[in-house]
Amino acid sequence: MSSLQIADREFDSRLIVGSGRFPDPETMREALRASGTEMVTVALRRANLNTDEGENVLKYLQDDGYFLLPNTAGCYTAEEAITTAKLGREALGTNWVKLEVIGDDETLFPDVPELLKAAEKLILEDFVVLPYANDDPITCRKLADMGCAAVMPLGAPIGSGMGIRNPYNLRIIKDLVDVPVIVDAGVGTASDAAIAMELGMDAVLMNSAISQAKHPVKMAEAMKKSIEAGRLALESGRMPKRLYAKASSPEEGLIEVDREEQ
Amino acid sequence: MSSLQIADREFDSRLIVGSGRFPDPETMREALRASGTEMVTVALRRANLNTDEGENVLKYLQDDGYFLLPNTAGCYTAEEAITTAKLGREALGTNWVKLEVIGDDETLFPDVPELLKAAEKLILEDFVVLPYANDDPITCRKLADMGCAAVMPLGAPIGSGMGIRNPYNLRIIKDLVDVPVIVDAGVGTASDAAIAMELGMDAVLMNSAISQAKHPVKMAEAMKKSIEAGRLALESGRMPKRLYAKASSPEEGLIEVDREEQ
Amino acid sequence: MSSLQIADREFDSRLIVGSGRFPDPETMREALRASGTEMVTVALRRANLNTDEGENVLKYLQDDGYFLLPNTAGCYTAEEAITTAKLGREALGTNWVKLEVIGDDETLFPDVPELLKAAEKLILEDFVVLPYANDDPITCRKLADMGCAAVMPLGAPIGSGMGIRNPYNLRIIKDLVDVPVIVDAGVGTASDAAIAMELGMDAVLMNSAISQAKHPVKMAEAMKKSIEAGRLALESGRMPKRLYAKASSPEEGLIEVDREEQ
Amino acid sequence: MSSLQIADREFDSRLIVGSGRFPDPETMREALRASGTEMVTVALRRANLNTDEGENVLKYLQDDGYFLLPNTAGCYTAEEAITTAKLGREALGTNWVKLEVIGDDETLFPDVPELLKAAEKLILEDFVVLPYANDDPITCRKLADMGCAAVMPLGAPIGSGMGIRNPYNLRIIKDLVDVPVIVDAGVGTASDAAIAMELGMDAVLMNSAISQAKHPVKMAEAMKKSIEAGRLALESGRMPKRLYAKASSPEEGLIEVDREEQ
Repeated sequence: MSSLQIADREFDSRLIVGSGRFPDPETMREALRASGTEMVTVALRRANLNTDEGENVLKYLQDDGYFLLPNTAGCYTAEEAITTAKLGREALGTNWVKLEVIGDDETLFPDVPELLKAAEKLILEDFVVLPYANDDPITCRKLADMGCAAVMPLGAPIGSGMGIRNPYNLRIIKDLVDVPVIVDAGVGTASDAAIAMELGMDAVLMNSAISQAKHPVKMAEAMKKSIEAGRLALESGRMPKRLYAKASSPEEGLIEVDREEQ
Repeated sequence: MSSLQIADREFDSRLIVGSGRFPDPETMREALRASGTEMVTVALRRANLNTDEGENVLKYLQDDGYFLLPNTAGCYTAEEAITTAKLGREALGTNWVKLEVIGDDETLFPDVPELLKAAEKLILEDFVVLPYANDDPITCRKLADMGCAAVMPLGAPIGSGMGIRNPYNLRIIKDLVDVPVIVDAGVGTASDAAIAMELGMDAVLMNSAISQAKHPVKMAEAMKKSIEAGRLALESGRMPKRLYAKASSPEEGLIEVDREEQ
Repeated sequence: MSSLQIADREFDSRLIVGSGRFPDPETMREALRASGTEMVTVALRRANLNTDEGENVLKYLQDDGYFLLPNTAGCYTAEEAITTAKLGREALGTNWVKLEVIGDDETLFPDVPELLKAAEKLILEDFVVLPYANDDPITCRKLADMGCAAVMPLGAPIGSGMGIRNPYNLRIIKDLVDVPVIVDAGVGTASDAAIAMELGMDAVLMNSAISQAKHPVKMAEAMKKSIEAGRLALESGRMPKRLYAKASSPEEGLIEVDREEQ
Repeated sequence: MSSLQIADREFDSRLIVGSGRFPDPETMREALRASGTEMVTVALRRANLNTDEGENVLKYLQDDGYFLLPNTAGCYTAEEAITTAKLGREALGTNWVKLEVIGDDETLFPDVPELLKAAEKLILEDFVVLPYANDDPITCRKLADMGCAAVMPLGAPIGSGMGIRNPYNLRIIKDLVDVPVIVDAGVGTASDAAIAMELGMDAVLMNSAISQAKHPVKMAEAMKKSIEAGRLALESGRMPKRLYAKASSPEEGLIEVDREEQ
């Protein structure tokens, strides 16, 4: 299975995991281990760097050797997000940032103009920007064109667990941009992650699907396997679809928008 | 991950693989190894026991230690199927049989009345019968009630690669019968297999999805992982679905018919 | 819009409506009128021919000039169904019958072997048989081959309102049989009926979708229009599907199995 | 069936039709008549007001009494769109405009920041703005909040005929905004339009689905009926969904996101 390159870093795992909403730090730690992830996102506000628990979580994550990706969850404007990104750079000693600028606190969809503005400024300040975006091909292309290291369209709303709602848009995005496309949000169970990979996505970022499962550690293991399965299936070149075995024409291409290895 | 019990046998792998249509015997051998399967179906007609190649294939499979499940592929009547089952019993020294009685050679859907007749007679002759059926709950319950060791509804037509076309029927079948429910036919790529397992199916039987992929060995590995991922996800108890994170009511239950661990 | 021929009768409306479970006989009467249907099924057991209400319902239907199609709802065996069909013939003076032989009273799926047996015998006794079947192409072809005047596969379980769960099977059935294919059961709302017609189905039979709506008369009008819309759309030859307007290849054929006019 | 109010105008028809790409002006004229539409969009660039054919088309449309909605198709920037809108105002004597600002000429997705900028300025200049948007709830709410008379999210890419790709987003948009929500683009056949209406959308705007059908006039008639059918079904209050008739819990709400009358 080929590895994943983002900016100047290479990852063997195509699964990125959020550290929020686990029942307790120990479960988080064990689940992350089971997931095989190498990159963990940290909400600086949530981590509450000054509290004991926040410190513990960060310490665990650092001890366990993950590459920590600070995120700007909970920011509603470009300005807030930029401030938070800088705080993250200082706190975690990295210029990478998962950029979130949300439009409201109900649906958690991104605010596109603010997102574009924040991304532009952060790139000028030498951040490696991984933006959480909606599944809009034009927005994703703008983000890629301005120099984002990856684009991260949602599969479904954050915390919804609804899976990949619009595989067609994800496929168009993959066709339009040259940087990695990472599905961020929406994945609820193992098959959702496999579907994302089979569509040709480069990685998947998830949080609730693992932390909110009844058994987070087991689900983390499921996700590790499903991401690998989906990627391998993509690279394997799946059989064509037909209405039935001897139907005259195979159905390749658009149906449920599978992608073949190129 | 819990193991799978069929009749008096226990299997660690929930993936059953057919031995047909591989590009060559060596690829078959390597793919089966990569799949982690313990049970391999053999079409006696296809194996052509008397030919050199048929002999080789069988010898490989026996050498590699698989439990061989003779099938009655290509039979159109109960009588033909019974004859073929008996041939299989002698040739392979097992009273297990994957019972196929098909209605035509285009769509390869089963012929329900002939299937029921054949199953009944084979059970009387002490066969352990695993019938390939359509996704009809009543037919599957009849098969279970008469003593079949499992029921094997199709996910989609044989050789179609269309995935699980009607998850609702599969879920109803699982509710109606007490024997293992094995999805036989239709799986085309890794996520299809994960979906079957998440639905609560006990195992998946596939052939073309592996043998007809461009890289069968890699796809076999993908299938191993996706079956495990789907089963683990089922056992993990997935997060509820919501329209968005703060939507008032979680959407559990029927939507896309996920099953929770019981 | 072309008309529908079943056996020796011709219908302008492609909507067949069941007379069960309306809030009251007047609403039924008004809804049937709004639906534009010409053929109404009557459950003889439900009609309770001897009771006052049963008499009234029948009288209304006859007064309003519908062609009444007696059905064998609630029959579990071929024998019961045959007896009920004969009762219907005497009571309603028609040799047409909607043949239902169900497998259990929970899921209301048909019992295939009993259905086939009943159909065969009724045809020998000069009935015009319209059998309610599952969406199994082989069963439907057997029914057509033995002389049924139409086949009536379910779109989803009776009373489920789930819509067309497996359009692929319906399309295969349409390809395999020469008699009209009528979707019986499963339709829950207007678009379901339109989808059935766009798939090339010849007619739709529904009951709960109308009688269990909050406003049955309005829903009946919706169904009239959607059936006509779906049929017209089929005859219009829809535009091809593409991933986007300038995508290189149109996606015709299998995706969501639309059918073009022939 | 209730009527549709946009700004200060009331429409009996919930179908808006584009005038582009018909095989010839006569077919356009007849199809528009069959569709029952009252509002027709005109691409000023396409109409080529100075040419003979452009003049004819406009003259026909005006003679036939449609309310003409000039659009800014083919504009890539706010500035271009504003200029085109003003040209339309002069040419057609209306301050209404269908605002399109597209991000590229392949996928024809909107450019969100340019769209927002153009909408804001046109509203300041007393235009009644109906913006073509992607199915992003935050963008649609911004457009509504700034005073657009309606929001018009796409169901699928322009010219794709793919239907409603993400009903979930459309439903969230409907919940977030108070102005009419009109599905603009994506509808390919009659059932797509019915689905949009059943989701609670206030109207549907389409062009290729009619003009690119093999028989545009027939398809226009199909669309008229399906829009009415879908709206009536919404107002009728559909039956609940259940896995089967006697399954314990009805499935209301999110599945396939139907909406009930409120």
